[in-house]
Amino acid sequence: MITKPTLFLDEKQCRKNIETMCSKAKKSNVDFRPHFKTHQSQEIGSWFKEFGIDKITVSSLEMARYFAEDWNDITVAFPVNILEIETINSLAQNIELNLLVESRESITALESSLKHRVGAFIKIDTGYHRTGVDPNQIAEIDELARMIAESEMTEFKGFLAHAGHSYKCRSKEEIRVVHKQSTEAIVTLAEHFSNKYSDLTVSIGDTPTCSVADDFSMVDEIRPGNFVFYDLAQHQIGACEINQIAAAMACPIVAIHKARNEIVIYGGGVHFSKECLEEEKHGAVYGQVVEKKETGWGDPTPDMYIKSLSQEHGIIATPESEISKYKVGDCVHVLPVHSCMTANLMKSYKTTDGKTISRL
Amino acid sequence: MITKPTLFLDEKQCRKNIETMCSKAKKSNVDFRPHFKTHQSQEIGSWFKEFGIDKITVSSLEMARYFAEDWNDITVAFPVNILEIETINSLAQNIELNLLVESRESITALESSLKHRVGAFIKIDTGYHRTGVDPNQIAEIDELARMIAESEMTEFKGFLAHAGHSYKCRSKEEIRVVHKQSTEAIVTLAEHFSNKYSDLTVSIGDTPTCSVADDFSMVDEIRPGNFVFYDLAQHQIGACEINQIAAAMACPIVAIHKARNEIVIYGGGVHFSKECLEEEKHGAVYGQVVEKKETGWGDPTPDMYIKSLSQEHGIIATPESEISKYKVGDCVHVLPVHSCMTANLMKSYKTTDGKTISRL
Repeated sequence: MITKPTLFLDEKQCRKNIETMCSKAKKSNVDFRPHFKTHQSQEIGSWFKEFGIDKITVSSLEMARYFAEDWNDITVAFPVNILEIETINSLAQNIELNLLVESRESITALESSLKHRVGAFIKIDTGYHRTGVDPNQIAEIDELARMIAESEMTEFKGFLAHAGHSYKCRSKEEIRVVHKQSTEAIVTLAEHFSNKYSDLTVSIGDTPTCSVADDFSMVDEIRPGNFVFYDLAQHQIGACEINQIAAAMACPIVAIHKARNEIVIYGGGVHFSKECLEEEKHGAVYGQVVEKKETGWGDPTPDMYIKSLSQEHGIIATPESEISKYKVGDCVHVLPVHSCMTANLMKSYKTTDGKTISRL
Repeated sequence: MITKPTLFLDEKQCRKNIETMCSKAKKSNVDFRPHFKTHQSQEIGSWFKEFGIDKITVSSLEMARYFAEDWNDITVAFPVNILEIETINSLAQNIELNLLVESRESITALESSLKHRVGAFIKIDTGYHRTGVDPNQIAEIDELARMIAESEMTEFKGFLAHAGHSYKCRSKEEIRVVHKQSTEAIVTLAEHFSNKYSDLTVSIGDTPTCSVADDFSMVDEIRPGNFVFYDLAQHQIGACEINQIAAAMACPIVAIHKARNEIVIYGGGVHFSKECLEEEKHGAVYGQVVEKKETGWGDPTPDMYIKSLSQEHGIIATPESEISKYKVGDCVHVLPVHSCMTANLMKSYKTTDGKTISRL
């Protein structure tokens, strides 16, 4: 029985999402190195092995350490934090560890303190402008590559980009434009260096472009992560259908305010995170209520969504025609806006079959 | 040595914040039942005992269970979640437990499944409109009070409000207006029932009004919580001075982009939460950089703030005059926007004296 906010997982849908992405990678003949920052779970990670996946991406050394129990080829897709050199060394002793560098300082620091050889990718900024080197700074990239290649502690692996500007898209067409532009930028760069360095890997990966684009044959590796669950944000972007979302929070109803058509749930910012969508019709949306089924959930209930969140409370705007169907002590199922942030807040998952799945 | 995002606590300032609020309560001759949802730490909780505090507020039964090891009078300031009746019964067996009710259904459910007597407050909506009963619904409140009082399992304790609309204020003057309006609403209600029920407690409490107002003598109890750390949101509201903020996140610098005056830190939405302020000058602000000191931190560095966050990355807008002072591998200290949400994401605190403080 559900007694408090519980993050449910539709295992079947989740496995389907994994399978679809695996097939896509295979069709383009590229390596698939899924990002595990969304689920952060060894058990969910193991589902990827059934499709032959043997290397992964994470976003912190803490995650790398957790997953190193099961995986021996891990890329930490985050600019290397040289202060964590001890963790880096202990990981590099046991697994194939790839790090991201984007400055001479980082490479020098690694060179002087690494005890075991690691792979190094140069992080390229293909338009998101969060971090990474501009692909037009050829002289700088040349110098970084030289430093990596000449060091005995680092192996120059190639170029890596995250086209996070795809998150600003609102249609498949826009996503394809970002994919084309971003991929061309990094591929052009890699071609420039292909005479100097052989076997460079070009790695890209964000859920919107990897979900919508069909052809990845220009690159060597894709690294999407969020697709494992998807969420309302991906749906708004145009990256998934609403029924591909594989995670939903079950929340107890604690109060009902018929006069203003609102339901109060136990389920707040400490469960969902305060990430929200701006919707034309409803304004800020923090979650979408879906129909509850015998096991799991069904379609969205139109115009029934979380309109605000505080630490433990969620306020659900509810159509007048719906509100009488609910009473205090019932549970509602809510699709999250950003499944990575939501999963990170919850200690475990419950599958719709009743299994508990732990995470980091 | 700091190697990854670490939430620092200025214990001295934190104790000062506690002392100030204790003195205020004493001066108005009201009970102080601090809300522990912000720090969620037994050790920080113990600092309150030094000021004679012997009862507390929490926002979930999970927190009540955690704090019940040290405290035997706890109010769960959240509309009772009747699905957690087992936890309620196990707590009520051992401590004085107060619950919030606001509907007949809840009271009936409690009546039929409580095994031990609990205190019950009627939750009153004094203008925030998150939840609670409108104080003008006298007939409904009368009926709720009757049901509580007649049940053998519940003791009618009084009325409780949270003037959360104070969070929309932007000056001390506005906060005082909310305090006056909200207090008058609940006090008038309590007076109406004072002939029928003796010894009713009127409980209010939110950090803005409790920080700014001076006189609480009209009520019986105050329950602020956030004041223990304060944060940028409280500062924007007008509830604290910037140097009263007792928590700051230390974050490693992983990349520097001089061309656009940005510093990339290891410190993202999974550390700070994605709560942000809207500032006239800077737009969205997710954290404010402060000067680093030998121990702890000093004043804010003007115009140096987190402008965006993703899961693990933070992007700090940095004045041109400042950026050359920083290098990869340094740490910056950042004041959080909402300390409750930030503390909830971190597993422990580090005091500026080097002590580790655990939490729930």
